[in-house]
Amino acid sequence: MATEKRTELSQIGEFGLINRLKEGFSHQNSNLLVKGIGDDAAVWDLGNGKYQLQSTDLLVEGVHFDLTYTPLKHLGYKAIAVNVSDIVAMNGKALFVVVGIAVSNRFSVEAIEEIYSGIQLACEKYNVLLVGGDTTTSRSGLILSVTVTGEVSSEKVTYRNTANVNDLICISGDVGAAYMGLQVLEREKQVYLAHPDMQPELDMKEYIIKRQLRPEARIDMVQTLEQLGVQPTAMIDVSDGLASELFHICSQSSVGAYLYEERIPIHPQTVESINEFQLSPLTAMLNGGEDYEIVFTVPPSAHERIRNHPDISIIGYITPSSDGLKVETRGGSVASMQSQGWNHFKP
Amino acid sequence: MATEKRTELSQIGEFGLINRLKEGFSHQNSNLLVKGIGDDAAVWDLGNGKYQLQSTDLLVEGVHFDLTYTPLKHLGYKAIAVNVSDIVAMNGKALFVVVGIAVSNRFSVEAIEEIYSGIQLACEKYNVLLVGGDTTTSRSGLILSVTVTGEVSSEKVTYRNTANVNDLICISGDVGAAYMGLQVLEREKQVYLAHPDMQPELDMKEYIIKRQLRPEARIDMVQTLEQLGVQPTAMIDVSDGLASELFHICSQSSVGAYLYEERIPIHPQTVESINEFQLSPLTAMLNGGEDYEIVFTVPPSAHERIRNHPDISIIGYITPSSDGLKVETRGGSVASMQSQGWNHFKP
Repeated sequence: MATEKRTELSQIGEFGLINRLKEGFSHQNSNLLVKGIGDDAAVWDLGNGKYQLQSTDLLVEGVHFDLTYTPLKHLGYKAIAVNVSDIVAMNGKALFVVVGIAVSNRFSVEAIEEIYSGIQLACEKYNVLLVGGDTTTSRSGLILSVTVTGEVSSEKVTYRNTANVNDLICISGDVGAAYMGLQVLEREKQVYLAHPDMQPELDMKEYIIKRQLRPEARIDMVQTLEQLGVQPTAMIDVSDGLASELFHICSQSSVGAYLYEERIPIHPQTVESINEFQLSPLTAMLNGGEDYEIVFTVPPSAHERIRNHPDISIIGYITPSSDGLKVETRGGSVASMQSQGWNHFKP
Repeated sequence: MATEKRTELSQIGEFGLINRLKEGFSHQNSNLLVKGIGDDAAVWDLGNGKYQLQSTDLLVEGVHFDLTYTPLKHLGYKAIAVNVSDIVAMNGKALFVVVGIAVSNRFSVEAIEEIYSGIQLACEKYNVLLVGGDTTTSRSGLILSVTVTGEVSSEKVTYRNTANVNDLICISGDVGAAYMGLQVLEREKQVYLAHPDMQPELDMKEYIIKRQLRPEARIDMVQTLEQLGVQPTAMIDVSDGLASELFHICSQSSVGAYLYEERIPIHPQTVESINEFQLSPLTAMLNGGEDYEIVFTVPPSAHERIRNHPDISIIGYITPSSDGLKVETRGGSVASMQSQGWNHFKP
């Protein structure tokens, strides 16, 4: 093996790896498969007028969560929520989940039941059924794998690669909160490790901490868009960060984007924490991930139906590909957006 | 947390854990769900006359495989095969898989591509499509999660809990081979660690080693049974060992079983290795797992159609529950079967 080519994962990153692996399967032939690797969920047609959707996620201790400050019940809840969010991002409805769990002997049966109580709570909240799973041991940390299956009508399914020039870019809720919640939790962890007798300072941080530890999937947005009579042209959920998600939509749709910083929705607690940590608000909003809000584009004609919705913000518009991805700052200058979505493989 | 009850996983084992977790979800209401936790795969009805099947598996380095002697390509192949086998065990056809992979930086991009080349090979062999996945980093070992989705007509679906007294117990292929392959590989690993210059002694072990490293899912058995016009009454695949699988069928069907040792199919290489290792043949056949053969029961009326098939053995029959699980040894004595299916949580 010593003489063989060795490419480090950190050289190509997660998206680079996915692209390389995808090639091996590009020749797969099927009249069932509508969409394979490359969107929030796979899409296939079982011929009953509806499309099925499927997405899978691995959550690894020390990579995706830190049990120092993550309650096990919240972890179980989040594992389901982030997967349901992938189905939401296809404009679909989640129906079933299967959960694999690998644990070392340091976890008691009661601890695992605590994780499952969170899973159960999320299943009830999102009206999905836990239909199966796998339990096994691990030599070190805790690992959760979740696969969710859902459905959507073929007219409503929404991909990443179908945004059009002049479409409005919209987002639900607010962004940057989960990222700032993580900063607070990490800081308090360091304080705790240095001074175990000190109480954590979490006053006025409830919202951002909850956004990090127990995010919600925006299943309500699928219903909202239907009620508003709006069919989005493209859609994705915010897992790696707004900039990264827009890069996916823009590169797959061969378009550009123009955002207004002042229109990007942000919670007062997020602003306060950004100031406290002396971070750049734009960085937190564009590159902070894990908010699990929905980013979507709509035709300009939908403007009237969208503009007054209290939980949807129009943050910019789609431009020709040659214009690239730009953001107009509060100060009035125009900057190029950098996609700094989480590269899991960077040391 | 110190004063709370702590039950060790090793006290209740994997099946005990599954039973405890199942309770939390037993009240789930759905007219779609036909079968939840507790069979080889979940079963739901999407209303198009067919049932959908889904199963998930986690494969953890150091628990399910040892990279000292497991080629990465075989590992990828096996990950798919064992999941497809769960669909076979429902008498169904696998259609789609999603694969999650967590790797540490010690793996190169080329190593991961090697795993995927095995996944691809298995997908082609079993005619399933890889439709999605997740890639992430892990802090230590390699973890693979596979979820397979398939289908079966509602008349053909076969569960574990529907065996009847007097049914014949049948098995495809032979058993004990994968277990003996593992013994050989573990022995050669120890020899190699002690004397790195010695060549491994794998002559006349090809069959049992392949059964361990690159098992096949018996998708052909689903077709065979259809061609023979045989609808099995119960079915399961051999992952934890023949005795453990029969315990599942018997406890869920509220029946007993009577086996004949001399009828349990075993390969000459398996016999030879059993002798070499001075093991009990019955233990290897009953408690050796990972053969991924199919154990099924058929009504006595199917005897004529089954008996002459070269790859199916009739190894016993179903008895009333009160008779328990018995095996008649070659010597003519009758022993109670012990389920020693792999308890992943035993230290």
